[in-house]
Amino acid sequence: MRALFYQGNKTFAINDTRLQPLKEGEVRLKVAYCGVCGTDIHVYHGHMDQRVKPPQIIGHEASAVIEETGEGVSGWKPGDKVAVRPLQTGTEDPSDNGCAHIGRNMKFIGVDTPGAMQQYWTVPAYTLHRLPDTLSLQTAALIEPLAVACHDVRLGEVRPGEQVVVIGGGPIGLLIAMVAREKGATVTISEINEARLELAASMGFRTVNPLRNDLVGEVESITSGAMADVVFEVSGAQAGISMMTQLPRARGRVVMVAIHAQPREVDVFRFFFRELKLIGARVYEPEDFDEAIAFTVSGKLPLDRLITEVLPLEKAQEAFEAIDANPAGMKFLLEI
Amino acid sequence: MRALFYQGNKTFAINDTRLQPLKEGEVRLKVAYCGVCGTDIHVYHGHMDQRVKPPQIIGHEASAVIEETGEGVSGWKPGDKVAVRPLQTGTEDPSDNGCAHIGRNMKFIGVDTPGAMQQYWTVPAYTLHRLPDTLSLQTAALIEPLAVACHDVRLGEVRPGEQVVVIGGGPIGLLIAMVAREKGATVTISEINEARLELAASMGFRTVNPLRNDLVGEVESITSGAMADVVFEVSGAQAGISMMTQLPRARGRVVMVAIHAQPREVDVFRFFFRELKLIGARVYEPEDFDEAIAFTVSGKLPLDRLITEVLPLEKAQEAFEAIDANPAGMKFLLEI
Repeated sequence: MRALFYQGNKTFAINDTRLQPLKEGEVRLKVAYCGVCGTDIHVYHGHMDQRVKPPQIIGHEASAVIEETGEGVSGWKPGDKVAVRPLQTGTEDPSDNGCAHIGRNMKFIGVDTPGAMQQYWTVPAYTLHRLPDTLSLQTAALIEPLAVACHDVRLGEVRPGEQVVVIGGGPIGLLIAMVAREKGATVTISEINEARLELAASMGFRTVNPLRNDLVGEVESITSGAMADVVFEVSGAQAGISMMTQLPRARGRVVMVAIHAQPREVDVFRFFFRELKLIGARVYEPEDFDEAIAFTVSGKLPLDRLITEVLPLEKAQEAFEAIDANPAGMKFLLEI
Repeated sequence: MRALFYQGNKTFAINDTRLQPLKEGEVRLKVAYCGVCGTDIHVYHGHMDQRVKPPQIIGHEASAVIEETGEGVSGWKPGDKVAVRPLQTGTEDPSDNGCAHIGRNMKFIGVDTPGAMQQYWTVPAYTLHRLPDTLSLQTAALIEPLAVACHDVRLGEVRPGEQVVVIGGGPIGLLIAMVAREKGATVTISEINEARLELAASMGFRTVNPLRNDLVGEVESITSGAMADVVFEVSGAQAGISMMTQLPRARGRVVMVAIHAQPREVDVFRFFFRELKLIGARVYEPEDFDEAIAFTVSGKLPLDRLITEVLPLEKAQEAFEAIDANPAGMKFLLEI
């Protein structure tokens, strides 16, 4: 079968590789589509070479059809359409506090173990979520990032009528905005890329470019001075960190979605002074996948508008280069 | 009557001053004792000269007896023993979210308006909390800081059986430790001053000096690897900020009690990675005063052991100088 191998040094290669026999509890999937995640771009840039040792197959935003089930797998049969929750649970650490999805010994499939950018992908059966036969497998490749957004909005406890600001209008930011709007919130998106702003605006979101306008002033005016109930920091930038504490009202919540590789200068005083809450939110739990699938099936969210381009696996190198060259692009899918 | 005036430049003076007529809704109190707070020390150092304009009467940790009630005050009579919740509510700002105690236009009595370091102190009747006749007015001067601790522990949602770490073993840190222990938590106190460590240990708390021992390792060993459920940052130091993210277990809570005047380097990634929560907590609400009074009346907490020295108002200058010179001291009271 064909598989895409990360070779290090911004290079991918398609190679033939042999199918491995299935182990107990495992399922072999025929991968349909696999989205390219920001994490995959980090791998491409070599930032994760310590964790992802070349040659390695990456990818974790997949839709697929079951090809074969291993020993001890029940409830699944060849032909079933599935999404994969790519978390391989490890031994529980005493500090995990029952949170298997962020457990110390959890492995992220597609980063720590082989990923979905190959024709046949072997995963534990417990990672599978069932998709209706009628669902487009192309759209279904967005379920994994959508589950991230469902998790973030759930942990942020967004309620109907609330004012939400999303700092960073990339794919995850827009998905959070969509989910928060479905929960009944009014959403404003802060983003510095004009093409992304345009896309967000065309989806009906209020948008602000904080380089051109005063974001705090805009939120003040939008909310008649009441400010934001919930702020999602999805930018990963120091500027986002600086804004996140200025936007909430008293006892407002800030949800930390972005990965900040280095310590940041945080206005800690503001947390004290206005009794703000910072809530860390990472990946997802099974119920977030269930919700993401329900949203996808419902057709309520403009998910397909996030898809910038669909390319065959053979053009993966091109896809990564295109993403790198185009900061306005949203989601690139590989057709496997 | 005699009153203590902050004159600027680390100087206090006792002066005679005239009683002002009571306005509607006001009560004149005969002050019994007034504790010296960290905030008062900031005033003494001139750090708050923009907010506290000399000559100004400061002090807000008071126990008192009602001397006279103004027009429209009901439910109170001369002779009643009271504690004062020194928050003068202002017009509600749209961003206050119903949180009057941290409202934008709230004035802190004893900082923004005249305080308790005078024989007769005039305050709005709505700031009063009734004390039983049998309660020692000296001990009652600790109710205000104890209410801070009750608020912090309440917002931290400390539950029976939880592991708590308090970073900073000054008066507020020890009061938080006492309240958290009453809630059924196991408390460890991190402090760098040896005399304060000794006092905390003599009250039965586990103590760690992070300059001598590895605090993270100690908490790991105390909790058999489960780490802390709740961490209170009361130190106000960058070192406390650096430790606060390393101590909690997955989904653990960090309560921000200390005032950090400048932005701090925060390991934001850790909030994401372990889904931690940061919870800002400032002053108190009426129910925290009720709880603090109940604790004080119950005699369960070793409050009197926090009192380092009681000095007459005439020796206030001496008291401030002594506090400045003695980092191990805990609570100094002025007998008014």
